[in-house]
Parts: sequence; C-alpha cells; structure tokens
Amino acid sequence: MKTPKKISELTVYRLSIYERCLELLEKEKITTISSKEFAERFGLNSAQVRKDLAYFGEFGVRGIGYEVTLLKTEILRILGVLESSSGGEPWKVMIVGAGKLGSAILRYEGFKSYGFKIIAAIDVNTEASEYRLLSKDQKFAIPLYHVSEMEEVIRNQSVQIGILAVPEEKAQEIARKMTDAGIRAILNFVPVQLFLPDYVKVRHIDMAAELHCLTYFLSSQE
Amino acid sequence: MKTPKKISELTVYRLSIYERCLELLEKEKITTISSKEFAERFGLNSAQVRKDLAYFGEFGVRGIGYEVTLLKTEILRILGVLESSSGGEPWKVMIVGAGKLGSAILRYEGFKSYGFKIIAAIDVNTEASEYRLLSKDQKFAIPLYHVSEMEEVIRNQSVQIGILAVPEEKAQEIARKMTDAGIRAILNFVPVQLFLPDYVKVRHIDMAAELHCLTYFLSSQE
Repeated sequence: MKTPKKISELTVYRLSIYERCLELLEKEKITTISSKEFAERFGLNSAQVRKDLAYFGEFGVRGIGYEVTLLKTEILRILGVLESSSGGEPWKVMIVGAGKLGSAILRYEGFKSYGFKIIAAIDVNTEASEYRLLSKDQKFAIPLYHVSEMEEVIRNQSVQIGILAVPEEKAQEIARKMTDAGIRAILNFVPVQLFLPDYVKVRHIDMAAELHCLTYFLSSQE
Repeated sequence: MKTPKKISELTVYRLSIYERCLELLEKEKITTISSKEFAERFGLNSAQVRKDLAYFGEFGVRGIGYEVTLLKTEILRILGVLESSSGGEPWKVMIVGAGKLGSAILRYEGFKSYGFKIIAAIDVNTEASEYRLLSKDQKFAIPLYHVSEMEEVIRNQSVQIGILAVPEEKAQEIARKMTDAGIRAILNFVPVQLFLPDYVKVRHIDMAAELHCLTYFLSSQE
C-alpha cells in the first residue's frame, strides 16, 4: 500500500475522528464499509472522507468498500500511535499544572487506549488538594513532582509530550523550560500564545475561541 | 466601515486569538500597531494577519497601523460578544455534566470577560461531590439541576449555548434533548460524533485528535 509522505494537520485531525468511528464499527462486528455508508453513519462529509482516504491508496476494495480493521490499523500507524510506529512504547506524557483542569485531564479515559502514558504530573504545590484527592484513587496514582524538579524529570524519563494547564502568567516561562529540557510537543490549555522554537509543535485548546465560533454563528443567524 | 457578510470558521477562530492579543496591547497602553509588528509580537503569520484584517476594510491607518481599541471592539462585535451584538445581555450557557471536567470548565476564567454567563449546571447526581466541592465557594454558586429538569430549565431560561461533558454513552441522547429544547450551539467535550439537526452548530474539543496531531508530528520527525 502507498503511504502519504506528508499530510496536512486538518487531515490528521480528521483521520483521528475516522479512527474512532472505525473502532465503533469493529465493536459492532462490521468488517467492511463503503465511504458513502461510513460518511452517512457518522454524519461526515462524504466527499471529504473519500478524498482523505484516497491517501491510503488501495484500501478501498471496489464494490465492497473499506476493510474496517485494516483501515483502522493503517490510520493508527500514520498517526504514530501503534506500538510499532513509536518504537514499541507508548508516548510519554507529562501534565504540567495539577489543578482543577490538570486533574480533569488526568482522568481522560482516552489516554489509555490511544498509546499514551502519563508518567508524571507537575505543580507548584505538591500538597495540592485537587491532586491529593485524585491520588487516593489508585487508578490515578501518577507521581506528582514540584515544578523545580520538572526539567530533571523530563530529561531522566525522556518525556515527549507536555500538557500545559498552568495559570496564564506562568505559561510562557514554563513552556520554555519544558522545551529546553527536551519536550517537542505541547498541548496547550492556557489561553495565551506561546513563543517556542520552530521545532516544537504546539496544539492549542482554546475554549474562548471555540465559544466565539458559537457566538459568531448564533449572532449571524439572527 | 465595511463589515464582512460571512467569514469562514477558521477566520472566526483566528479573530478570537487576535482579540486576546489586542487586549494585552491595551493593558500595555499601546494604542496603534502595524500588522507586521502585531504578527511578530504574538508569533502569528503576518500574511495571514493582513488577510484576515483586510475584512475590516479601513481599520488600518496608512503608515501608522491599526488602532488597538477600535479593532478590538470591532472584532468583539463581529464575534457576537459585545453586549450590543447579543441584544444587551451575555450569552446564556449551561454545563451538562458536572463531574470532574464539567467542574473544571465552570472555573474557566474566560467566561467572565467574554460575554458569557453560566446560568445552570446539570447532572444525574445532584449530590455530585465534585460539584458540591465547588459550590462551597460562593464564586461558583451556579444552580445545579437534575438531568430530568434539563429541558424545562433550557426553555424557561432561554439557554442558548450548551457545554457537553457527560459520559460517552449518554452524549447523543442528551445532546438531542438539549437541541429539542431550544439550544442551537454546543461545545462538545465528549469524544463522540453527535447527530443533530443542521441548524445546530457544534464545536468539538477533541483531545484524542489533538494528541494525534502531536504524535503524527513527532513520529514523522524521526
């Protein structure tokens, strides 16, 4: 099969959504599906689905459709979350800021199934009540370190991905320290623009901007 | 000044980011800025900034740049969050699912400054410890209703925006009830695709897809 060299970020994002849909089909023991049925079933744009999946060349079997498990596996490989594509190990993730939001993220179920492992949480207050509340539950017994130990933990444990959930005024300084210590990918929950070296990838979960997309829609409808 | 009739969702998203940057400039008493300086200061793409702001016609004063406060106000108006653009009142928001994540969202500081008002939280368990913990703090004394009362609250209080943070298996059913009761905009934190009428706008905060954008980047670098 041909594998695309470089695909756009928007396509990567959509592939992740398709992968989740394919998992649902697998659970329902559906083994093949046409792009049209796939789009209809999950409320996706069918032209877009065809275009995105065209990257995968021979995956569609004429007159039958896509093989669900095969396509899912191939997408996971492209996304870099199959063990074979990340060197046999899950990605090492650190949560920086173990307050209310950081603790909510720690509970995110997706981490287990998607090839990620949260190996540490960082806070200024290692007695932080939010986190202590969590850690009583053995399921969330992730070591909590003081922010002064952050860089050492990143280096010693080769942390690859950082999730940033600190107060606004600390975000830039801490993000810079994270990347200086070796982190090359950050999921930023803080509503500030980060200035980081070009080799660092940042994805920003910007709740204000998301809400503005909704208010723009609502006010342009009236 | 000319106002664009219809702008793309990606542009709306970027306008929200520009608005936050303009607020920072205002705090620093900077009154005018060129698109080039603006882009450099905030690490934005300067061609993109010029293109996006071109929608606003005469806002740039030749040789001086943009008037910070004027541009900020105009963007807020476009986004629909100036009081004058939402009928003199903040947008009414309901949080559905008052667990760990829902409670973290309740604390999001952005709600205060961006023309939103959270008027209710909904859960299956109105004794939910997460939420009770929150409400002891008077700042977060938002009424919590049982899910069976949700539609009544939406109708009686004309809730416009719903934030969905319920378990996966409940998401579709509850989202449908929300929209049937009159909500036309949903910010979805649940990792499922929602099937809703075309007149409903959904923005999806999809943490798995965000993380996959990072793992794709990391694995394509190696």
